Amino acid sequence: MNSPARNIDHTLLKPEATADQIRMLCEEAVEFGFAAVCIPPAYVSLAANRLYGSEVAVATVVGFPLGYDCPETKAYAASRAAAAGAAEIDMVIHLGAALAGDLDRVEGEIRKVVEAAPEGRVKVILECCRLTDPLKVSLTERVVRAGAAYVKTSTGFGSGGATLDDVRLLAGTAAGRIGVKAAGGIRSWEECRAFLEAGATRIGTRSGAAILEQWRRAEGV
Amino acid sequence: MNSPARNIDHTLLKPEATADQIRMLCEEAVEFGFAAVCIPPAYVSLAANRLYGSEVAVATVVGFPLGYDCPETKAYAASRAAAAGAAEIDMVIHLGAALAGDLDRVEGEIRKVVEAAPEGRVKVILECCRLTDPLKVSLTERVVRAGAAYVKTSTGFGSGGATLDDVRLLAGTAAGRIGVKAAGGIRSWEECRAFLEAGATRIGTRSGAAILEQWRRAEGV
Repeated sequence: MNSPARNIDHTLLKPEATADQIRMLCEEAVEFGFAAVCIPPAYVSLAANRLYGSEVAVATVVGFPLGYDCPETKAYAASRAAAAGAAEIDMVIHLGAALAGDLDRVEGEIRKVVEAAPEGRVKVILECCRLTDPLKVSLTERVVRAGAAYVKTSTGFGSGGATLDDVRLLAGTAAGRIGVKAAGGIRSWEECRAFLEAGATRIGTRSGAAILEQWRRAEGV
Repeated sequence: MNSPARNIDHTLLKPEATADQIRMLCEEAVEFGFAAVCIPPAYVSLAANRLYGSEVAVATVVGFPLGYDCPETKAYAASRAAAAGAAEIDMVIHLGAALAGDLDRVEGEIRKVVEAAPEGRVKVILECCRLTDPLKVSLTERVVRAGAAYVKTSTGFGSGGATLDDVRLLAGTAAGRIGVKAAGGIRSWEECRAFLEAGATRIGTRSGAAILEQWRRAEGV
């Protein structure tokens, strides 16, 4: 199997992450050739400077991880992140609105974020562990309609992470119109491979370096 | 002992909170006479309308719970919340900056939020479970200097909640210049009372109704 590096978002989103740790993450991302680093908004400028001229994108998070910031605040945060050098925005939906059936509100906030970062790829986090399957399907349709680039399973801070069933459901609904990012609890090449085979096109993980080492060993590269 | 109602922030910050649950929270807050409801930014307008004319304040959260949004985004979120009717803003500091020793940056972001919500009381969440005691003391001094109204122990989403030792340390440092809010894991009148006796002036809890019932029983009111 080909290297999964270009499918991996090298991720560091813990609240106590320091600038030194972000610098190290950027260096690893270049070394391994990951798709992106996924980092806190406060470090976007730092990472963008560090990665200037490389093929590694800067991704950051908006409304993260609880999703209940106002749409206007999410849009403001996205536009600031884009201006500071983020090419990808991982936003969390307003779960309370989704659970109350107000999908128009959710589509509206996604659209606002997409418009606020017109050059950026927006990944929309559903936090699947809190949703029914029909709601996951309806929300994925709204994500497509709102112009986002990816639907994403989980924040990694919820009660559950990515599952293969969820990835199959989201990928089947997306049907190639947008990408699918699996995140939350993916730590080995074996797991990563299973998620890619289930239809994920991007993997969010803290364990990118270990996954690449395991892939090399498995493939004898 | 007097009723603790006016020391309690009646709190609902789970990501799946719906509008109906916020309406019920507001009704309970009026019934019990709590100081404030502490709710997600997306529901500030709803709560402010519901509580109009009552003595219950609307409090909301900024940079919550991870603290690593940009200072400008925190200030924007605070100004929107204030405009929508929030009288109190519970903000989380940038922990990564604090842990790296960059306290000027932390003081600067607090100052920005205070300026963005000039009529509002700003409560600054340190997330004590991740800090050393000397850092808690230094940060409390910065909170005072930046013009905030309270220092607060915890988000309730971290690895640890309020402790009596932390409240004593923060209250001793604040020395009456600002209030101290204890939050995270406080569920009974016995616990609430211990935190008030340790120097807390505000208690954040999901269990305000149960605490009031227990207080009534204990005092024979």
